[in-house]
Amino acid sequence: MPRPILLFTGPFADRPLEELVGKASEWGYAGLELATWGDHLEIQRAAADSDYCQAKLDLLARHELQAAVLGAFRVSTAVCDVIDQRHELILPDYVWGDGDPTGVQERAAEEMMTVARVAEKLGVGTVSGFFGSPMWSWATGWPGASPEMIAAGLEQVVETWMPILDVFRDCGVRFAYEVHPGQVAFDLYSAEMLLDAFDHREEFGFTFDPSHFLWQGIDPAEFIHHFASRIYHVHVKDASVTLNGRAGLLTGYYPSGDRRRGWQFRSPGHGGVDWEGFIRALNRTRYDGPLSVDWHDPDMDRDYGAEDACKFVQRLDFEPRV
Amino acid sequence: MPRPILLFTGPFADRPLEELVGKASEWGYAGLELATWGDHLEIQRAAADSDYCQAKLDLLARHELQAAVLGAFRVSTAVCDVIDQRHELILPDYVWGDGDPTGVQERAAEEMMTVARVAEKLGVGTVSGFFGSPMWSWATGWPGASPEMIAAGLEQVVETWMPILDVFRDCGVRFAYEVHPGQVAFDLYSAEMLLDAFDHREEFGFTFDPSHFLWQGIDPAEFIHHFASRIYHVHVKDASVTLNGRAGLLTGYYPSGDRRRGWQFRSPGHGGVDWEGFIRALNRTRYDGPLSVDWHDPDMDRDYGAEDACKFVQRLDFEPRV
Amino acid sequence: MPRPILLFTGPFADRPLEELVGKASEWGYAGLELATWGDHLEIQRAAADSDYCQAKLDLLARHELQAAVLGAFRVSTAVCDVIDQRHELILPDYVWGDGDPTGVQERAAEEMMTVARVAEKLGVGTVSGFFGSPMWSWATGWPGASPEMIAAGLEQVVETWMPILDVFRDCGVRFAYEVHPGQVAFDLYSAEMLLDAFDHREEFGFTFDPSHFLWQGIDPAEFIHHFASRIYHVHVKDASVTLNGRAGLLTGYYPSGDRRRGWQFRSPGHGGVDWEGFIRALNRTRYDGPLSVDWHDPDMDRDYGAEDACKFVQRLDFEPRV
Amino acid sequence: MPRPILLFTGPFADRPLEELVGKASEWGYAGLELATWGDHLEIQRAAADSDYCQAKLDLLARHELQAAVLGAFRVSTAVCDVIDQRHELILPDYVWGDGDPTGVQERAAEEMMTVARVAEKLGVGTVSGFFGSPMWSWATGWPGASPEMIAAGLEQVVETWMPILDVFRDCGVRFAYEVHPGQVAFDLYSAEMLLDAFDHREEFGFTFDPSHFLWQGIDPAEFIHHFASRIYHVHVKDASVTLNGRAGLLTGYYPSGDRRRGWQFRSPGHGGVDWEGFIRALNRTRYDGPLSVDWHDPDMDRDYGAEDACKFVQRLDFEPRV
Amino acid sequence: MPRPILLFTGPFADRPLEELVGKASEWGYAGLELATWGDHLEIQRAAADSDYCQAKLDLLARHELQAAVLGAFRVSTAVCDVIDQRHELILPDYVWGDGDPTGVQERAAEEMMTVARVAEKLGVGTVSGFFGSPMWSWATGWPGASPEMIAAGLEQVVETWMPILDVFRDCGVRFAYEVHPGQVAFDLYSAEMLLDAFDHREEFGFTFDPSHFLWQGIDPAEFIHHFASRIYHVHVKDASVTLNGRAGLLTGYYPSGDRRRGWQFRSPGHGGVDWEGFIRALNRTRYDGPLSVDWHDPDMDRDYGAEDACKFVQRLDFEPRV
Amino acid sequence: MPRPILLFTGPFADRPLEELVGKASEWGYAGLELATWGDHLEIQRAAADSDYCQAKLDLLARHELQAAVLGAFRVSTAVCDVIDQRHELILPDYVWGDGDPTGVQERAAEEMMTVARVAEKLGVGTVSGFFGSPMWSWATGWPGASPEMIAAGLEQVVETWMPILDVFRDCGVRFAYEVHPGQVAFDLYSAEMLLDAFDHREEFGFTFDPSHFLWQGIDPAEFIHHFASRIYHVHVKDASVTLNGRAGLLTGYYPSGDRRRGWQFRSPGHGGVDWEGFIRALNRTRYDGPLSVDWHDPDMDRDYGAEDACKFVQRLDFEPRV
Repeated sequence: MPRPILLFTGPFADRPLEELVGKASEWGYAGLELATWGDHLEIQRAAADSDYCQAKLDLLARHELQAAVLGAFRVSTAVCDVIDQRHELILPDYVWGDGDPTGVQERAAEEMMTVARVAEKLGVGTVSGFFGSPMWSWATGWPGASPEMIAAGLEQVVETWMPILDVFRDCGVRFAYEVHPGQVAFDLYSAEMLLDAFDHREEFGFTFDPSHFLWQGIDPAEFIHHFASRIYHVHVKDASVTLNGRAGLLTGYYPSGDRRRGWQFRSPGHGGVDWEGFIRALNRTRYDGPLSVDWHDPDMDRDYGAEDACKFVQRLDFEPRV
Repeated sequence: MPRPILLFTGPFADRPLEELVGKASEWGYAGLELATWGDHLEIQRAAADSDYCQAKLDLLARHELQAAVLGAFRVSTAVCDVIDQRHELILPDYVWGDGDPTGVQERAAEEMMTVARVAEKLGVGTVSGFFGSPMWSWATGWPGASPEMIAAGLEQVVETWMPILDVFRDCGVRFAYEVHPGQVAFDLYSAEMLLDAFDHREEFGFTFDPSHFLWQGIDPAEFIHHFASRIYHVHVKDASVTLNGRAGLLTGYYPSGDRRRGWQFRSPGHGGVDWEGFIRALNRTRYDGPLSVDWHDPDMDRDYGAEDACKFVQRLDFEPRV
Repeated sequence: MPRPILLFTGPFADRPLEELVGKASEWGYAGLELATWGDHLEIQRAAADSDYCQAKLDLLARHELQAAVLGAFRVSTAVCDVIDQRHELILPDYVWGDGDPTGVQERAAEEMMTVARVAEKLGVGTVSGFFGSPMWSWATGWPGASPEMIAAGLEQVVETWMPILDVFRDCGVRFAYEVHPGQVAFDLYSAEMLLDAFDHREEFGFTFDPSHFLWQGIDPAEFIHHFASRIYHVHVKDASVTLNGRAGLLTGYYPSGDRRRGWQFRSPGHGGVDWEGFIRALNRTRYDGPLSVDWHDPDMDRDYGAEDACKFVQRLDFEPRV
Repeated sequence: MPRPILLFTGPFADRPLEELVGKASEWGYAGLELATWGDHLEIQRAAADSDYCQAKLDLLARHELQAAVLGAFRVSTAVCDVIDQRHELILPDYVWGDGDPTGVQERAAEEMMTVARVAEKLGVGTVSGFFGSPMWSWATGWPGASPEMIAAGLEQVVETWMPILDVFRDCGVRFAYEVHPGQVAFDLYSAEMLLDAFDHREEFGFTFDPSHFLWQGIDPAEFIHHFASRIYHVHVKDASVTLNGRAGLLTGYYPSGDRRRGWQFRSPGHGGVDWEGFIRALNRTRYDGPLSVDWHDPDMDRDYGAEDACKFVQRLDFEPRV
Repeated sequence: MPRPILLFTGPFADRPLEELVGKASEWGYAGLELATWGDHLEIQRAAADSDYCQAKLDLLARHELQAAVLGAFRVSTAVCDVIDQRHELILPDYVWGDGDPTGVQERAAEEMMTVARVAEKLGVGTVSGFFGSPMWSWATGWPGASPEMIAAGLEQVVETWMPILDVFRDCGVRFAYEVHPGQVAFDLYSAEMLLDAFDHREEFGFTFDPSHFLWQGIDPAEFIHHFASRIYHVHVKDASVTLNGRAGLLTGYYPSGDRRRGWQFRSPGHGGVDWEGFIRALNRTRYDGPLSVDWHDPDMDRDYGAEDACKFVQRLDFEPRV
Repeated sequence: MPRPILLFTGPFADRPLEELVGKASEWGYAGLELATWGDHLEIQRAAADSDYCQAKLDLLARHELQAAVLGAFRVSTAVCDVIDQRHELILPDYVWGDGDPTGVQERAAEEMMTVARVAEKLGVGTVSGFFGSPMWSWATGWPGASPEMIAAGLEQVVETWMPILDVFRDCGVRFAYEVHPGQVAFDLYSAEMLLDAFDHREEFGFTFDPSHFLWQGIDPAEFIHHFASRIYHVHVKDASVTLNGRAGLLTGYYPSGDRRRGWQFRSPGHGGVDWEGFIRALNRTRYDGPLSVDWHDPDMDRDYGAEDACKFVQRLDFEPRV
């Protein structure tokens, strides 16, 4: 019995969900990881209005799609990020407010508690997202931060998120934190630090996305084996290292597709991720959750790619030895 | 006629200069890139007291060492950095003051003007250093900054540094900016953006250090050929990519030597830099400035390494075709 | 809307076109790049007899194939090549004549003007071909030619081809010159020299075939980006580097398939060409012309391969981002 | 007992031999491979005047240099090459004459017989050189030559050179043919064809130079083992493959050092030749002839390099197991 | 006409043949390589009872499967192996008997003669298997065996197997010996030694399985070309080198799938075998026997994999040039 | 203070020790790892005769060489090996006796106890050697051994060696077991199994030799870090992987230097071992024991190589950070 293949709706949140569901179904997806932005899932309406939730579930059911995961990347990153103009573009007005950093962070934290409650109402067991990071500017730069500064930064994140995760626990929902550059945990060892800092509490696990490991030079299979029991969700996204002597791996200033970048996102199967190693590691560690396509590719038509990706994952996901 | 081989005294600034000069001379160095911290060169004393400057020059002369470059990395990075606790550790008290960011930045800017004047007094034509960066936290993270934000960040750096560079111009001293992760310019293309932003003014060029390019996947020779006329200074430092499937290239939290890092600094010739390509590119572009050893290696004795490095550069620096 | 996939009929010119069209259609091709030899397109008959042209167009139309490009490689190479016995085998009798080099070259030049006129009659906008080269024997050998000799060789080619390209211009037909070992332009830089020598005149552009770049060590995507607006036609052909310590890359004496060669042609998708990079570069540069299969493979059945190749290109040619 | 290290004087033939010998001796060389051009060895004077020969030998002896090999590359290549302007620059006036190809070839052939006789007079047992090639333009280009054309080309070379080699035999001198792009034999298999074509006659063997194999992708050690008993002379020359996605391996139009080339010659030890494999193969096959430095490097001072090369070969040439 | 694709039933011998044939047929196989263990083919019953043989043939025929090869790996390896407990698990009781090594070997030898006779009865022309080896413990260890010991070991194998191969000859059946670690012949050169030792007798050829060459670093195509006329049977099995700095290639103690191993078996097309090179070499050498899937993969469901493998081989096996 | 560089005398045991000591001293060695065969150290004489021991010590002292380690590889491997003709060649007559395996093993075990006692008399704290292995024939072959068989084999080795190691303990001598193909422990994981099986008793540690890991694909630095406190001795030996498509990594039948082997031993610094990684790992783990050259190279003169190796290790062994 193969794993359910989901489409993460974030990259399509500019389109009405009503339009997207028909396509997702045609393309072959079994369900959705619903973005908590655009009209895909408006958290305040969902919290206030049970009919709203039911209507969403009905819409999906009509297209034989399950609502398997909520993707709350935008608001969750605002909880601990150093807030600046970048966040205005990704937050709802009522969270951004006047943009004063402390207020933004507090409202984002409250919103995440609401997300957990909405998930419970929708019968969704997993929310994917970020924590934000107060210490990303220290990464790879100079002067480096002292161990004490790192410890203090971690502590601040833990203190902020513990009460949020308590709500998740109470709602019976798991938080699947994506290990991602820009976040506190961006590689195998920082993920371990975070897991330790949260004392391995049950509600907290990872969204695993191999594309972020490729250009960092980390083997995705090592990550999967290392955190087997804590992989709560999986993103299927590919990337390609496109070094040519002039481009470099640090790409902050250059937008997706710009040839000055040393790597690019790619539609799954069109890049350099070792998918065979990826699926074998998931099979060995008995991961049986969904495989959710988080589609990004600067060179490919989005609809073409979303269908191509679904078929790719169907071919990839072979049956493990029982 | 081979190029002068310098020792950058920054990594030895915990020792009195008086002690270091004897060793540097014995190890074979022709001169020093003097750090503007420790007792190696106290900027306020040097500015106020001409005898202080002459005493430094005499000390060096007794050991047949030239004072070829001033290395002002610490104070210069505070000019535009987002100031936090990391900077307290690297700044003189009178620059740090109460630690209020705006004040720190202003005092650092003034100090850099003084550095230019001290260089002139010492007869030193080149100061190496950083600018600091208000936008490093955007690099490689998410959400990315918009082109407008990048442009505004660049503009802020230019406005801050233009008056400082005016002082450099008036003193007849060049500022050799090191392209370095954590700074505005960290790769070939961001260096180009910076050069454009400063409208290619004469005083502004680069300190080139190949070790920062190795792990970013950039060919040092491409950089040298691209900016041939703007390479005002060269640091000789090596690095080794030590990926093993688990470690990654982003190493912000892990100190030098920690096996969780996917790369490490290495004594020159003990790492992965293509030194043959490096020296050929310098020969072809007719670089005739110094080669300054910026020594870092977590596994090697510092004195052993400084001597080993000097001999390595002597062997490396072959005579170009005339 | 995917690009039309053509079959170049040159490798099948031993078979009557009447027989080939049925197969090409079955295999899935949308059109043909008609070879100007065999019975596929007899230039003198086509020039003299309008019925002949119409009959060819009708034949193709019956199989729903478009006549998109004429492939005139054989006669075009004789225009500037150093003529020897090799050319007798590939030229029509009336061009070869008595085999005297000057006469052969002149008759080949006239024939190319006729090819342009025939293309116009057939409504075909592109002719692919070569120029021939008076200076191939200088490539990679010793003693090398002086810059003056190279310049003179180029000048001779330009003088010979300018009047031919005038006819192309007058007919509204473009000449798509294939960058190919043995020709004046065989790599990125020699292609640039040629484009400059022809002063970038509009009628002159390139047929791009990645297989010739593979074993030269050139990245096809670099070529495509460098000459984006001048890629008038594309050949889909694959190759494989088969070095084993004993074979070498220069393969002049050893026929296709001989294991003494360090590279071999391969059916598309069965070799080492980076097809993903190829199609992405074409997508980015908005190339919207045909993809023409120029099928060569010493180990595979030709009909099997032609069908396999068409299906490969269909899978490869994904829709670009709009 | 290490092998004698020679300096091939060809790359220094613009300087008087009198000046060069002092340097060669200082640099550490044990002898010379005398170029038969410049004033290093004027063949007609040497043939006519025994004092001339003795004076050369005395000059060398005064600097403790042996005259071990004559290098006759320039005139020998004219024997079978397709003659054009390139040859005027490398031939003595009396060989070039009016430049009519047939006459040039005939005079070059006679000159080579004289070279053999001069070698005998000097007590030199080996002459290194080329044959020239009537068929280089067929290599790697299109259309390819038929097996019959290749056979005919080989036959022509054999017929021309058999009488010359008869003179070598009569003089007790061996001809060490350099396997080299541009020549009939340029790789392992074409060398085998040539050896067969000459029916393995004793006077005919090879000058082995690994630099020409590097960029062709051939392992030098395979060549050495394959032709163990026929390696009559060895050139020590290095090369570096400098591919960067844009440059290619076929470099005919671009002079040494030009960055458009995909490979460059390098001073020995500064390039990519597997010198360890090279010396081990020579040790295993019991080659005990000289190692002759044929120095070329576009980035390095020639005198610096010649000395550096001699020291490199001294370190390289370890004692074989007896 | 593509080659017949067989399923080797050994890895499925725990299931009744009656059950397996239906699946094999559905999966797309054209025939079986019947294991001589389990209930797939009981040699003593087959020898004694002609109805038994006919029943097997009928069973296969009902599912349109041919009986193309007998796979006798288990009993054949006991003929010359150093017998220990491992063999008890793979031999029928009547061959193992009391386990005394000499008796076991003798009974295994007799059984192999019977296998030949059974093959003849079934109309099967090829038996695949091993010889066993008295000298495997010498491989890769220390102290090494002397050439005399190797020669004596080979001689012992030849003497034991000559009479068995005589029976094969008399039955018109070929023995296809699998080159395999643990056996006398495990690589290209030991296969050559064995072929020489048997004086190239006709009945003796090889079962070629590329998976055993992958981790030894041998190119499968080299083996195929070297022994073209002696490849009597082909196993399709894949493997993947999974080195990570800690695991090693010698894997004796660690079972299939254990991450301490530096390589693993893989379902065909899911590993590192160069299948393109494999099929081209078989095409060039005109191998027209079966391709038999010997399925092993520690991470994949067996039935899923057996079908996936059949489809993979169908796609792989392209038509050769005639 | 660099580590003492020793010469292991085993590869020179055909020469009288008296002759070797002079050379070893000249070559630059600080001491010897004395082979317990040849006349280098006759165990029975040394045990019986205290003058014999003192004479050896005096001989070394006269050449300023320390006796730092005893190398007992030959007799120790006979303790648990499956005894065959190979062992007759490497054992003293009184150990081999009538060659009956049980007796040989028992006498070898007793001899090893004597070796410990001789070490104590000589003031030598470390004996290097093997255990022998009853289960090497199972490695990499087929059928594989069951976990129970492996466990039983290990148990047998432990039972045999426990009393021998008791003697080592009583003598205050450590046994440094070399991890080596052919032995029970041949890679990182089997070394761990062995350490566990001996319950990490103090007397038991490893002789680490990186050459055996190279061709197995294991990173020497991983081994060093994994067993830091148990590395009791280090052998400096190099190897080179010489795969060429035809040779393979399993080399049992082909003697050292034979080109059919896929790897060869090499004089240190002439092969593929990552010596930089090796010395850094030893520095980091604070190994301060000797570096003992175990010299093997089929292509190099032994005396030349022994000196070359000593100088290589002197250059390699840089001073660690304190």
